[in-house]
Amino acid sequence: MSAAVVLLSGGLDSTVSLALAAGECSSLHALSFAYGQRHARELECARWQARRWKAREHRIIQLDFGSWAKSALTGHGAVPRDGEPSGAIPPTYVPARNTVLLAYALAWAEVLEAPRIYIGANAVDYSGYPDCRPEFLDAFQALANLATRAAIEGRLRFEIRAPLLQLSKAEIVRLGQRLAVDFGHTHSCYDPGAEGAACGACDACRLRLQGFAAAGLADPLAPAGASG
Amino acid sequence: MSAAVVLLSGGLDSTVSLALAAGECSSLHALSFAYGQRHARELECARWQARRWKAREHRIIQLDFGSWAKSALTGHGAVPRDGEPSGAIPPTYVPARNTVLLAYALAWAEVLEAPRIYIGANAVDYSGYPDCRPEFLDAFQALANLATRAAIEGRLRFEIRAPLLQLSKAEIVRLGQRLAVDFGHTHSCYDPGAEGAACGACDACRLRLQGFAAAGLADPLAPAGASG
Repeated sequence: MSAAVVLLSGGLDSTVSLALAAGECSSLHALSFAYGQRHARELECARWQARRWKAREHRIIQLDFGSWAKSALTGHGAVPRDGEPSGAIPPTYVPARNTVLLAYALAWAEVLEAPRIYIGANAVDYSGYPDCRPEFLDAFQALANLATRAAIEGRLRFEIRAPLLQLSKAEIVRLGQRLAVDFGHTHSCYDPGAEGAACGACDACRLRLQGFAAAGLADPLAPAGASG
Repeated sequence: MSAAVVLLSGGLDSTVSLALAAGECSSLHALSFAYGQRHARELECARWQARRWKAREHRIIQLDFGSWAKSALTGHGAVPRDGEPSGAIPPTYVPARNTVLLAYALAWAEVLEAPRIYIGANAVDYSGYPDCRPEFLDAFQALANLATRAAIEGRLRFEIRAPLLQLSKAEIVRLGQRLAVDFGHTHSCYDPGAEGAACGACDACRLRLQGFAAAGLADPLAPAGASG
């Protein structure tokens, strides 16, 4: 049982990854980022889940990606709606996002002497992000073990764990249910309404709704009339 | 001639690296970080040099390393003085520092479509930092080309340039002189006095003074009576 830093956006995937880590690690240190997301609802969910899963500490780092990254997720351009995921890299891509998030996680993990970093990346139902692929995660793990004093001195060997990488969204939902994840306190929508309600139409909502439908479960956040 | 992002601390090495980049690139985009350094003098030098070398833009990113990285450089513990560099990793090491800085540089480079990232890392006279070694920089370059949309789509191939990597401090000083670097507007000291004056005794000052002495040049910042 090792200590872990867990990247926690407050979405479905990172929450299930946190719940898994809770069963596999001696202490959890949750790490979230505020980077010009269109909404604060995601971070509220992250706070709730960090408490629920007894993270020893939860840090929220301010990033100013928003000032240069022209992504639909940071307020530049429209979030695509009602389109099937095409396999191409979508406009919600944020340049080098996971590289920056993992770099911060690595810095904290080294200070904590925590050998594990959990990330909820998914390469199956994912929307084509280059930094959610296994080859990216392998390369980051190799980098981590070259970059740090703790690794060079042999005190730690860093491991990037992406336990959802090869799961379908339906499998992630079933796994979350088995672990007693409260899905009502997760947030996936790229473009929520004023009260934080899921739109049901963006890529993230569609993948989520399809996942719950395929798992035979009801999503507590599903908009009225929505279905996968 | 390509566009470049240049990591610029305001120190001697990153300034010489900027001056080199000025002759090799079509446009320069300088990137500095404020991360709980003990002093502002370094960033003033970075601003001055970015103007001098006609960077198209100079961004300063706030990092909150200081809140967790227990490094002598971020105000935790004493900066070592009057000691020969030992080869061991010193207390001025900041966990995963260059990984975080390069991750930001990569994000900006992708937005700019700039294929080159310059870093003033040095593996000869350096003080044992794991993230200044060639194998770390090679691993980061490989990562950059897996992590980003621009690389995956074949529009860019990122290159991490560390032109000072194999130079001695004396060679860096001579190179800077040949390029007409104004050394008076650089800052190397880990632990300067109230007015920003170099202490002459920390590892960074000692390496710098030795470098100027070996190059047969006077350091305009040398404290009275100091020598390499």
